[in-house]
Amino acid sequence: ELSAAEVHSFVERFTAGEVADYQMTAWLMAVCLNGMTARETAELTVAMVQSGSVADLSDIPGHKSDKHSTGGVGDKISLVLAPLVASFGVVVPMMSGRGLGHTGGTLDKLEAITGFNVELGMAEFKQLLRTSGVAMVAPSADFAPADRRMYALRDVTATVRAIPLQTASIMCKKLAENPDSLVLDVKFGSGAFNQEVDEAVALAQSMLAAGERAGKQTTAFVTSMDEPIGRAVGNWLEVAECIDTLHGEGPADLEELVVVQSGQMLLQAGVVKSRAEGVERCRAALRDGSALAKFRQMVEGQGGDLRMVSVARPVLPTSFLAAAFSHRRRCGPGGYLHRP
Amino acid sequence: ELSAAEVHSFVERFTAGEVADYQMTAWLMAVCLNGMTARETAELTVAMVQSGSVADLSDIPGHKSDKHSTGGVGDKISLVLAPLVASFGVVVPMMSGRGLGHTGGTLDKLEAITGFNVELGMAEFKQLLRTSGVAMVAPSADFAPADRRMYALRDVTATVRAIPLQTASIMCKKLAENPDSLVLDVKFGSGAFNQEVDEAVALAQSMLAAGERAGKQTTAFVTSMDEPIGRAVGNWLEVAECIDTLHGEGPADLEELVVVQSGQMLLQAGVVKSRAEGVERCRAALRDGSALAKFRQMVEGQGGDLRMVSVARPVLPTSFLAAAFSHRRRCGPGGYLHRP
Repeated sequence: ELSAAEVHSFVERFTAGEVADYQMTAWLMAVCLNGMTARETAELTVAMVQSGSVADLSDIPGHKSDKHSTGGVGDKISLVLAPLVASFGVVVPMMSGRGLGHTGGTLDKLEAITGFNVELGMAEFKQLLRTSGVAMVAPSADFAPADRRMYALRDVTATVRAIPLQTASIMCKKLAENPDSLVLDVKFGSGAFNQEVDEAVALAQSMLAAGERAGKQTTAFVTSMDEPIGRAVGNWLEVAECIDTLHGEGPADLEELVVVQSGQMLLQAGVVKSRAEGVERCRAALRDGSALAKFRQMVEGQGGDLRMVSVARPVLPTSFLAAAFSHRRRCGPGGYLHRP
Repeated sequence: ELSAAEVHSFVERFTAGEVADYQMTAWLMAVCLNGMTARETAELTVAMVQSGSVADLSDIPGHKSDKHSTGGVGDKISLVLAPLVASFGVVVPMMSGRGLGHTGGTLDKLEAITGFNVELGMAEFKQLLRTSGVAMVAPSADFAPADRRMYALRDVTATVRAIPLQTASIMCKKLAENPDSLVLDVKFGSGAFNQEVDEAVALAQSMLAAGERAGKQTTAFVTSMDEPIGRAVGNWLEVAECIDTLHGEGPADLEELVVVQSGQMLLQAGVVKSRAEGVERCRAALRDGSALAKFRQMVEGQGGDLRMVSVARPVLPTSFLAAAFSHRRRCGPGGYLHRP
């Protein structure tokens, strides 16, 4: 087992260019094949956070909470969850990713809204958090530079699949955001990165340990990804389905995942006394228009065209339908099309 | 298990610069931790041979035989064995190494003879084989360039200790020499690179499989290296002990190792009908002056000062004695000093 000092020194020297890429990849392969202890993984995560800057959100009042999902097909939970949670006064400083492999990316989906800008500087990001309580952006370029270089090497050395490395790569970016608490959604099944439930549970436990090491209240959900979430797959189709959900008219499976995870975030923020109460209040906020109003405020704040998100059931132009059908052909049968 | 085509393509592309160092080191670590089958190892060896040129000894008449030792403390066998075997008309095209870790290097020992030149070009090397039947030189720079680059990476990525990689690294250089047959001396014990006998046996078996794959008659001895071989440790002291041995007056353990391995080489070359006969004839050649005469011919051919190897029991100048005593202090008790 490596000591904390050894892990930190290795990452620091890699960031400084003193440990060569060929030494890092040999080590990554050793981790891939031999694993790491939870303590080593937590130290690796912290070392990677410290390779770059950490957001200073201390001048923004309120509890800051974020959610991360390991991703899947039709996973659009964040688009509903972030404004929903923010509608309760909890600050949601969400930095998301692009599509990875077959799983969609939250940023790609948001960009389906004309004008929506996800590439904000830290000052703009914090200004939006102050005014709207929510912003959904790309990670700051200053965050965890060690992770970017390590991920690029993992991508070309067959070392992507390794729970300690997945843990550190995901958690270092979330911890650099510096929220007060975190909710993790670890997917398993045929549409997820980790197909086996055991693997997902192990990843969840590993991420929880890293969150705890960093002093953040962290909860993990391990959820099934054998079928697409909701009925829509495809960037704009998924945004449209989210608008339905924000009107309280979304698919039951999507709403369920949204309110359970949002309810947990409200509990961790101290807004409610139990997750059940959180779930109930979140369900209500999807029906009384408060979550939708927060969503519209976020879209407007980030330069999105409000006309695209104004109708409860957006009418899809023919080109979108064609895209949806082409998705169906590619993905095989499945109830993912927004509207036939 | 990798196919032969996969192994060859990987090494070819690495040699061509298409596989990056950081990809090679990840693969080296995977081999280090997961091992390779004997077939994979043999293919890796052949692929590394083919990364460079192979000596063409076809215009040199006679059976060509070489010996390789994994090395140890006081291992000076080659210095006696090469001229001894050559004195029977067997061609010994020996390319040796430098000291590695705590084990001495044959080239370093030979260079203790003033003027002895181990850095010969292929033309000079072959000319000596034609005239003397023996030459002891540094490996050609054209041999196995993949090995040089891979070894440099192994050295800085904790991937030196791996039987498949050790096998391929040793055997590719011996196979590039292109002898008709090979004898291997795999050491085990406290003074050897592989301390455990099981490890040495596994390495020997792996090297035999690689030799067989290349179509070379190969025999391996697994011998103890718990004590220094002979009584001398130190470059010149070891040369002096070899001269004693070539006079039939060497330490019994050294002579035994020399004649058993030389006898096997004579058997493989078809000079004798059994190893026992080979051992007997080798012992005689250490006493009738024929091995010593060949040694002197080799020293003269490679530019060495014959006066240094003229006396049966070379008188050591004071500085050599001081060096020997400093060795004793470093190595702990042991009968390695040439003469008290």
